[in-house]
This record gives sequence, C-alpha cells and structure tokens, in this order.
Amino acid sequence: MKPIVFDGLVVGHWDRKIFEDMHAGGVTAANCTCCIWEDIDATIKNIASWKRMLLENSDILMQVYDVDDIWTAYETGKVGIILGWQNSSGFGDYIDSVALFRELGIRVVQLTYNTANSVGSGCYESRDLGLTDYGRHLIWEMNEQGILVDLSHVSDQTAREAIDASKKPVAYTHICPHELSPHSRNKSDEQLHYIAERDGFVGVAGIPPFLRAGYDATIVDYVDAILHVRNVVGEDQVGIGTDLTQGHGQGFFDWIAMDKGNGRKLVDLGGIPLLPDFKNASCYPNLVEELERRDLSDGQVEKITGRNWINFLKNVW
Amino acid sequence: MKPIVFDGLVVGHWDRKIFEDMHAGGVTAANCTCCIWEDIDATIKNIASWKRMLLENSDILMQVYDVDDIWTAYETGKVGIILGWQNSSGFGDYIDSVALFRELGIRVVQLTYNTANSVGSGCYESRDLGLTDYGRHLIWEMNEQGILVDLSHVSDQTAREAIDASKKPVAYTHICPHELSPHSRNKSDEQLHYIAERDGFVGVAGIPPFLRAGYDATIVDYVDAILHVRNVVGEDQVGIGTDLTQGHGQGFFDWIAMDKGNGRKLVDLGGIPLLPDFKNASCYPNLVEELERRDLSDGQVEKITGRNWINFLKNVW
Repeated sequence: MKPIVFDGLVVGHWDRKIFEDMHAGGVTAANCTCCIWEDIDATIKNIASWKRMLLENSDILMQVYDVDDIWTAYETGKVGIILGWQNSSGFGDYIDSVALFRELGIRVVQLTYNTANSVGSGCYESRDLGLTDYGRHLIWEMNEQGILVDLSHVSDQTAREAIDASKKPVAYTHICPHELSPHSRNKSDEQLHYIAERDGFVGVAGIPPFLRAGYDATIVDYVDAILHVRNVVGEDQVGIGTDLTQGHGQGFFDWIAMDKGNGRKLVDLGGIPLLPDFKNASCYPNLVEELERRDLSDGQVEKITGRNWINFLKNVW
Repeated sequence: MKPIVFDGLVVGHWDRKIFEDMHAGGVTAANCTCCIWEDIDATIKNIASWKRMLLENSDILMQVYDVDDIWTAYETGKVGIILGWQNSSGFGDYIDSVALFRELGIRVVQLTYNTANSVGSGCYESRDLGLTDYGRHLIWEMNEQGILVDLSHVSDQTAREAIDASKKPVAYTHICPHELSPHSRNKSDEQLHYIAERDGFVGVAGIPPFLRAGYDATIVDYVDAILHVRNVVGEDQVGIGTDLTQGHGQGFFDWIAMDKGNGRKLVDLGGIPLLPDFKNASCYPNLVEELERRDLSDGQVEKITGRNWINFLKNVW
C-alpha cells in the first residue's frame, strides 16, 4: 500500500512542474501557502489564481475542504490541495472576511509572519508584545469557522497566549527544534511541550539554515529533527511540514526576508534553503525511506508521514 | 484684524455646506481627516474625492502643503485644507507609500486609531503593548517626510515610546484632559507634561462625552479644558483640535466605535457628540469670544486659536 503523505506546509512557485512532482512524490495532501505578506486584495487574486490552477490541473489535483476530501485524494491518486496562509494579513483586518475565506477553502492561517501585525508579534520582532484584543477575537472566529491556527513564525509569548485563547487545538505547522539549532525561528522543547500538552500539533520543517548542520544538512538531519520533536511531543502529535520552496529564486527569499516584503531586512537565510536530497516535491519517497531506516514500526512511520496530521485536522476543521 | 484660526482636527461629513461654514467661521486652516479605519485602497479613494472637492470648491478652499500655504490661505481669505489621517492603516503596511502620500499632501498621521495595529496599541486596547519595530521604522520615515505624528487615540505606553523614538516633535492633535474627566480617551497631566517637555504639542478637543459636564457641556466647558491644558503644557504648546464631526449621522458613530469599523464594539459615545454652541464650522467665533472673556491678552488668545499650531508645524513639516 502506498504511504499516506501529508505535508503541513509547502510554499512553492506554483506551476504544473511542481504539481507533477507532488503527484510523482506521492503527496496525499498538502497545506499550500497563498498569502505571506499580501493584503486582502492581493490574497484574493492569489486564491483566484489557485482556483484556475486547480481547474487546469484537475487530472492530478483536487481541492481539500474537509478530511473526507483527503481520503478521496488518497483513494483517487490525486494530490489534495489545502489552501493556507502564513499571515492573517489576508483577512484585511475585516473579521467578517473569515467566514468568506472559509467558504473559499482556506483551512490553515498563521497569525503573524515574522513581525508584529494587528494580531500579535512575530518571531523576529525585537520585543514580544503578545496577542492583541483583535487577535483574540480573530482566533475565536477562526475556531468557529474551523480554520486551523498556525503559530510557526509567531513569537513565544504571542504563541502561548494564542494557545491559551484558542478554543480548539492549534499547530506549529513547520518548525525546527531549537534544541538542535538555536535559531530565533526555532522552537524550544519547552515551547513544544506547551503546545503538545494542550492537544496541539507540531509539523517539522526541512530548512537547512534552521537545522543543526546548516547548509550541509541532508534528509538524515531532517529526520533527526523530526525524531527529536517526536521525543518531546509524543508519537501522535508530530508530522511533517517540509516548508519546501521549490521553484523560487533569490527574489522570493529577499522579499520574504524584508518586513512586509518591502521594509527593513529581518533575516539572512544565506541562500536558497533546500536540502540536496529534497530539492523538489518528487523527493518524498527519500524522506519516507530515511524514516523507515530508523527504529520505527511501519505504523509509526505512517503516523509521522501523514496519519497524525489527518487525525488532528479532523478535530479542528 | 481677523483672528487666526487653526483647527488641529476636523472630521466632517465633507460637502459644500461644511466648507461654507468653515469659510464663514473664519477658519484659516484645518487638519481634515480622510482615513480612520480605511486600508490603502479606500484611503486613496478618499484622497481622490478630496482632490475633486478641492477643485470644485476652489473659490473658498485651497490645499495646504506647507506653512507658507497657511499664510496664503489667511491672506486670500480661503480655508486651508490639510489632509490628515487618524490611522496609519492608510499606508497599507507599505513603508515606501509614506513618500507617495507626502507628495499628495498628507501632513498629519495618527499612528493607531483606538486599538492595536501593526504600529502599536490604541487607547481602547485592553493591554498597552507598546510600539512595534515597524512602528519605529514608520515614525522615522514620517519624520524624514515631514509628516506630523499624531498620538491622540494612541495608548499611553505606545505614545511614550513614539515620543521617545521620534526625531521630530509630535502632537496630541485632539484630546481632552483626564484631570477634568477620567475617560480612557483622555490624557493625564503627566502625559501632557511628557509630550510638552519633549517639544510636543497639544490640541484640545470639544467632545461632550470627554468633557466634565458630559452632554451638558458648552463652549464654556470646552474653554475650561483648553485652559487646563494650557496650565499644564504652557502657553506656547497648546491649540485647538475641535474634533468637530459636523454632518455625520449615527451610522458614522457606530462605525468608528467598532474595532476596524466592523469588529467588536469598543466604546459608547452615548449620542452625537456635538456642543450645542459649536454644532457646525460657522461657530468658531463663539469659541474665540469665550476665550476673549477669560484672563488672556489678545496675543494669548491668538496663540491658542492658531499661532501656536502654525509655529509648531514649521518645525515639523
């Protein structure tokens, strides 16, 4: 039987090539980013582009609105596309738009991307200011609408307050463990405990500058990071969120590295952050193989590659 | 000689009637609000509407870009219109747009309106989170572009940090003294001292629910508030910022009272907040007369009604 592969975050330069790679790589479903720094107008255009791409590539793609759709994708051999955002800026500071975007299929939204917005602080903000009143209201509305709250790029205090405020479990969809590499984007064991103890979920990212070996990292290091997180949060609350950036050039990384895409420079990723043996979406079998090399049963591998994510989302959506 | 009348904040339902009243009331120049909760798109449309109104009413209006224009308005008997915002949301979280709006004549921008945004917290936010990194960057860009930083609806800590961060003096363009009425929108004597000691400016508002007598207030109470602030900040750093809302119906007050214009209700103003003897822009002579009744020389009255504001803006613009 083919493995279940659920990716908690992919942020490709979307085109037919990536979709074919995802299909060849055996992706069951993935949270695909369509908002990073964009405002409501630009985000609507990104979603409109996605709807066209979903239609034009319907031989291998289908949009996922609920967990049943994930299983349909698995059974029909299509790639399930979950539309998600890395920034709540897409809501346009308009609380009523949450329901509208729910209807369009947005199912995962990160509260902030790297810096402070009207909701709270990001991981590169010099002071962690915590969750705003609007942020709390927005989380409740996302809970109501069944949109997963993602805290990957959110600052520590803001994330804790969001975890406490949320009426449904929340997730770090794509993070690396701070214990293995002390980058400000990474999460400490204590942070991982905090979310896990409150029924949250952790997807682990394969981003070289956030892994111990830096740009020398391979899938071996990535799996080490996954298994570290698994040791902290337990075998049922961990999955993958590769953060695969296939197809993007340096311009994209310059854009995401500036506040709001055009302000001060926040971070230097030091290059295109792709693992040499996970450069495109056809490489998921490499990851599955490396997991199978470790001291894990088939069932335990499958939990990590996708089953955990799907069980978790059933409760949130 | 006719008095100099500079109003630090007017937020009317703009039409020919108001412009005629401002003209009849002897307004030399006024900071006219064209953004409250709006995003960049809606704000651009508001400015575009203003440009049309300025053209259609050029017999009695002229746009003010600098202090010389204020004197030209005074000499030609026109009303000088300064375009200003009560929320930095108009910049669209796009730092480069500051220079663009400078070119269009935006000369006064409040950092936040009542709640938290990407810049900092507002006066009705349940916790005062302080200034964000972007907020600091935005202030410096506004300093560079000669746009006055307005802190009237900003929270205490955020305002202090903005005062400290700014390389040019900043203002409360339209506030009432907390000492006379303990409303959360009002500023304590300590807050007034803090801004004044750093060369800042205070415009005093004539909004009944923020004055001691509430909806029983008249211009007498308004002048009491002005003179209280004058006692605290000194005779050179005080002016008027009436916050006149001529022409607006209850719908406008409902809109401004909700977070971002559509979220949770923040405040109940208890009605249309107009003074009975200052219900429209033709009433400035009533205000001048009441000031003249107090223990002030003609020169001291003129400082309050406009000369202080103009001297202050020369340093900022």
